[in-house]
Amino acid sequence: MTTAATTDLRPDLVVLPRTVDIPSSPNRDTDAINALRFLAADAVELAGSGHPGTAMALAPLAYRLYTRHVHNDPTVPDWFDRDRVVLSIGHASMLLYGALHLAGYDVAIDDLRNFRQWGSRTPGHPERDATPGIDINTGPLGQGVANGVGFAMAERMLASRFNRPGMPVIDHRTWVIAGDGDMMEGLSSEAASLAGRLGLDKLTVFYDDNRISLEGARDVEFCEDVPERFRAYGWQVLHVGCVNNLDAIDAAVTGAVADTTRPSLVVVGSNIGYGSPKQDTAAAHGSPLGADAIRATRTKLGWHHEPFVIPSSVYDHWRSQMADRVSDHGDADTVLVAYRAAWPELAAELDRVMSGSLPAGWSASLPTFPAGDRVSGRDASGRALNALAAVIPELVGGSADVAPSTKTQIIASGDVNAGDWAGRNIHFGVREHAMGAICNAIAAHGGLRPYCATFFVFSDYLRPAIRMAALMQLPVIFVMTHDSIGVGEDGPTHQPIEHLASLRAIPGLRVIRPGDANEVAQAWRVALDHLGPTVLVMSRQDMLVLEPDLPDVASGAAVVAAGNEVTIVATGSEVELALDARALLAGDDISARVVSMPSWELFRELPAERRDAIVPPTTPSVSVEAGATQGWFEFVDHPVGIDHFGTSAPADILYREYGLTPVTIAAQARNARSRSSKSSKGNHS
Amino acid sequence: MTTAATTDLRPDLVVLPRTVDIPSSPNRDTDAINALRFLAADAVELAGSGHPGTAMALAPLAYRLYTRHVHNDPTVPDWFDRDRVVLSIGHASMLLYGALHLAGYDVAIDDLRNFRQWGSRTPGHPERDATPGIDINTGPLGQGVANGVGFAMAERMLASRFNRPGMPVIDHRTWVIAGDGDMMEGLSSEAASLAGRLGLDKLTVFYDDNRISLEGARDVEFCEDVPERFRAYGWQVLHVGCVNNLDAIDAAVTGAVADTTRPSLVVVGSNIGYGSPKQDTAAAHGSPLGADAIRATRTKLGWHHEPFVIPSSVYDHWRSQMADRVSDHGDADTVLVAYRAAWPELAAELDRVMSGSLPAGWSASLPTFPAGDRVSGRDASGRALNALAAVIPELVGGSADVAPSTKTQIIASGDVNAGDWAGRNIHFGVREHAMGAICNAIAAHGGLRPYCATFFVFSDYLRPAIRMAALMQLPVIFVMTHDSIGVGEDGPTHQPIEHLASLRAIPGLRVIRPGDANEVAQAWRVALDHLGPTVLVMSRQDMLVLEPDLPDVASGAAVVAAGNEVTIVATGSEVELALDARALLAGDDISARVVSMPSWELFRELPAERRDAIVPPTTPSVSVEAGATQGWFEFVDHPVGIDHFGTSAPADILYREYGLTPVTIAAQARNARSRSSKSSKGNHS
Repeated sequence: MTTAATTDLRPDLVVLPRTVDIPSSPNRDTDAINALRFLAADAVELAGSGHPGTAMALAPLAYRLYTRHVHNDPTVPDWFDRDRVVLSIGHASMLLYGALHLAGYDVAIDDLRNFRQWGSRTPGHPERDATPGIDINTGPLGQGVANGVGFAMAERMLASRFNRPGMPVIDHRTWVIAGDGDMMEGLSSEAASLAGRLGLDKLTVFYDDNRISLEGARDVEFCEDVPERFRAYGWQVLHVGCVNNLDAIDAAVTGAVADTTRPSLVVVGSNIGYGSPKQDTAAAHGSPLGADAIRATRTKLGWHHEPFVIPSSVYDHWRSQMADRVSDHGDADTVLVAYRAAWPELAAELDRVMSGSLPAGWSASLPTFPAGDRVSGRDASGRALNALAAVIPELVGGSADVAPSTKTQIIASGDVNAGDWAGRNIHFGVREHAMGAICNAIAAHGGLRPYCATFFVFSDYLRPAIRMAALMQLPVIFVMTHDSIGVGEDGPTHQPIEHLASLRAIPGLRVIRPGDANEVAQAWRVALDHLGPTVLVMSRQDMLVLEPDLPDVASGAAVVAAGNEVTIVATGSEVELALDARALLAGDDISARVVSMPSWELFRELPAERRDAIVPPTTPSVSVEAGATQGWFEFVDHPVGIDHFGTSAPADILYREYGLTPVTIAAQARNARSRSSKSSKGNHS
Repeated sequence: MTTAATTDLRPDLVVLPRTVDIPSSPNRDTDAINALRFLAADAVELAGSGHPGTAMALAPLAYRLYTRHVHNDPTVPDWFDRDRVVLSIGHASMLLYGALHLAGYDVAIDDLRNFRQWGSRTPGHPERDATPGIDINTGPLGQGVANGVGFAMAERMLASRFNRPGMPVIDHRTWVIAGDGDMMEGLSSEAASLAGRLGLDKLTVFYDDNRISLEGARDVEFCEDVPERFRAYGWQVLHVGCVNNLDAIDAAVTGAVADTTRPSLVVVGSNIGYGSPKQDTAAAHGSPLGADAIRATRTKLGWHHEPFVIPSSVYDHWRSQMADRVSDHGDADTVLVAYRAAWPELAAELDRVMSGSLPAGWSASLPTFPAGDRVSGRDASGRALNALAAVIPELVGGSADVAPSTKTQIIASGDVNAGDWAGRNIHFGVREHAMGAICNAIAAHGGLRPYCATFFVFSDYLRPAIRMAALMQLPVIFVMTHDSIGVGEDGPTHQPIEHLASLRAIPGLRVIRPGDANEVAQAWRVALDHLGPTVLVMSRQDMLVLEPDLPDVASGAAVVAAGNEVTIVATGSEVELALDARALLAGDDISARVVSMPSWELFRELPAERRDAIVPPTTPSVSVEAGATQGWFEFVDHPVGIDHFGTSAPADILYREYGLTPVTIAAQARNARSRSSKSSKGNHS
């Protein structure tokens, strides 16, 4: 590769030859860093809220990373082989925004002036859809550390699939900036333990060791030996005594890169609110410094420019160093050109997976199940997953140590393991929260379609990650089995009650609870077709298989048995109970319609006339679902469900004791017919 | 103290003098342990489901703990100074049930035969209300480790309040039995880190190191150095090479007791499914062994008794050793008698706090706020908390490193700290999940009334613990501030949307979102009056103070402004918007009623006629709440809310952009009046 080739590829840029080494200039470096510090302080000041202290402290780290170490190209922020950067301490967002601006990303000075304002590119916490150069949304602590593990796993998995000798088309690192809060969150412990197990050497986490927490001196709540803890996970631990020492940052990065078997934690000593009168106090954390303090900081650090005024020499110094980064991209593109020539089919496949489009005709692989059989949701799901995995190579995933129960193993494939990334089955361990956040990052990375699984009741453990998937509209498939009191003897800690309602409440999240094995197969199709997250909710117990052409999961609901005097809307394993209740009502000459409604969100998307054709608004209606009734009044007159915890007993006894039998459902349907349409507000009974 | 005094105190029991040492008899010990092993294997077999392997493995540990080391009395299972035992691996419940039976608790052999059956004393996972001798419900992994930390904290806090020289009336230990799953869950990391920080020396965690996980060999997912990790947290680490070595168990316990500055982790080598053909395989974990395997195990271990048949010699051996434990209780009671004589007022106070009743007249301390003022929910909450803390000494709590923002510090009190347990402010650190589980255990312990706090959006992080509080009906108060898009600039990761709906869906949980400062004060009163958990949801921003006598939080809802043509039901900061909308409607000669409905759960408890008097069913109605509308159709015809994520911008702009202004609410009320009562199902718009 020559620099000539590089300039050929990007004629729009004046790139410096890679052989030109830019020597550090203490003054120019200091100015470059102070520019970033004051962008942060001044933007928070102008916004009237925000977190100046950590951005001011870590400015040297961001400066050195972006200009020297991060494989990135401001002109192509979505370059697929870029290094991923995760600011787990998302409240310090101005650290990134300022660095992106100075580095030449499409983040203008006016964007920084609009920090935390309606419609701006610079929201309070980083958002990938809002800002070029932001790889993932962060803010809730701990998420970013686990996201970093997911990014690094995605890189390894894609590298094992696509790289060829001498042509490492997937070859990038993941850099995480984390703080004390991240270290205290259990989520980061889960993720770090797994990262150690998997030997994710291309993952580097910088831990901002500033000895300050929101409630004051950190030691009142946190005094563990973080380096020893990370060594116990199997990490290398390195130290940067003072973040202002740029050579020490370089040395730590060199050490991290040199270790090809372990992830690295770099403990970085820093001073929150560096240079300000509030330095090293909690007061520098979450509020504007105030005009006086900013003035004093300007004096102390010798920065005499007005807010948002950056001397051109500072831009020049940042940009001249970024030229090397852009040149790296050029080199990589040269490799890619050669790769396309040598491995055209593989290159086309790489383009396909990175674009997020599935292989042509993939859904033809889905199984259908003969009507009248009895198949559990989880078994049908396992069959659908394995059929899909055979034609969708980018489908990867695993469970939180319950794969034999959730039926989520890709049987024809091996395990993901340290040094062996060709497998597709990820053993997340009993680490539900990390599992969710890791899958979010795998999806955000691109090139893979992740799924993850656990028992439905434990969806609570990864709920904050599910929320982030919904917020980012990441195509993660959350497979949740053992979906009701059907769990039986394991008792109330293992029986979901409120989980359907609580997940349906999350904006932008699709929840699908299929009513038979064919709906399960369709649910997988709908989930894979969707560019956002989906929760698939599967029974442990067998369900009657309906006619394969009856259900219509994509519509959210379908009439599975006709009738016009009362409508029984059911989901999941309760569809069969509704059909049995319909038969009992028929004995009384009552014509009952049964609707399977696997997804509220999809049903709501139908036009009103289609909704009314499925659930006629003038026909009395009942819903039947073995879970909390909350929300069902939107769809029916009379919800039937379980608004209390379960108990430890065989499932059939629980269904009987809780009034979920064909006889009781038929009785409720009769009641609904005789009830006036206006009853007391807040009356469940 | 003499043994005579002991027998005087419990004449119903023949207790052996404490001076008689019972020598270990290898055969008798082996029989005692095998009896426990086969109770577990046979009960799982009879139930047809369950987890035999770990109970069989750890039988020696349970035997030795209960008969030698646990400060407990089978005849008084709720003795307040008993040691607490937490089986964090709750699926191994038969380990406890069998041990409780053999030790003489009121758990009969027929109870063991009814394992996992409807209405039995032996549910699939331990439940404190179901079984004498069970201190806390477990099952969801990780919870028990954090519960153990909470129990140990409660002991220290109560000891510092009530013990007097020579009279340690609170002096007990906490024993946790945990497994690999617990160690992998981030929750246990959070709790262990805090326990190390607080130097909880009377906490001992036994870690069942069986090298097997559900997905097979554990190392595929977990190979960290657990002892090193716990040393990093500041724990002592001890080892029992093989759990069958009873002397090694004794030595480890002695070592744990001897360390008076650190909690202890005891790593216990064990063999899952000990003695069975499935020993050391995942197959021994979660299914009955099967008749053949049980038969083979009987042969191998030399246990030739029928299922549930225990020789009297085995009972004799267990019970004779338990006599020492009962005698210990007698000694403690003797101390208590002397304490009552020496410190009558303190003893009365101890009785009061252990009974859970609050001091007489406590609620008179609550502040009232003058109508027309503007006070934020969190500020009003802080004032109410501090007023209550002055008269309720058992009120203790803290936040997940956000006390300055949640206003949850008890200003007149100091911090809880290692070696200094008189304080009442607990610094939980950024460990929301552990915070919740610790508070659950403090409440389950008795003697203290715990609260904990974080931002409402992060209620997701402790949701599994909130669910356990609801399941156990523990009186924990969860203070959640920053309750809506009112958070503003911090953006969607920090703005709750679905959290009200998702918490309201949890059975047995009270959610209260007060509409003004006086409702905040009332909410605290209602929460403290309640013997179950309450979530208090507080605004960050100021709210208009209504007339102090208007709201009625205990009823769940109250009319705050009369009207009869349309009803606007609002909660929290939206009550003020509803009042402003009512004024606009009055300009159009429309008489609108405004109802503040801080709690759905309390409103539902009203008789129908009272509900109808507040929200008349024949009057068109609208709800207004800055959150997901899910569930509101139960109470009103037309819910108005936010069914999408927020954005980073000042709060007033968000309220305007999302249609939550007096003008838009008035328009929605007008629409509700003109709408037909039957609209399409599933139609939000």
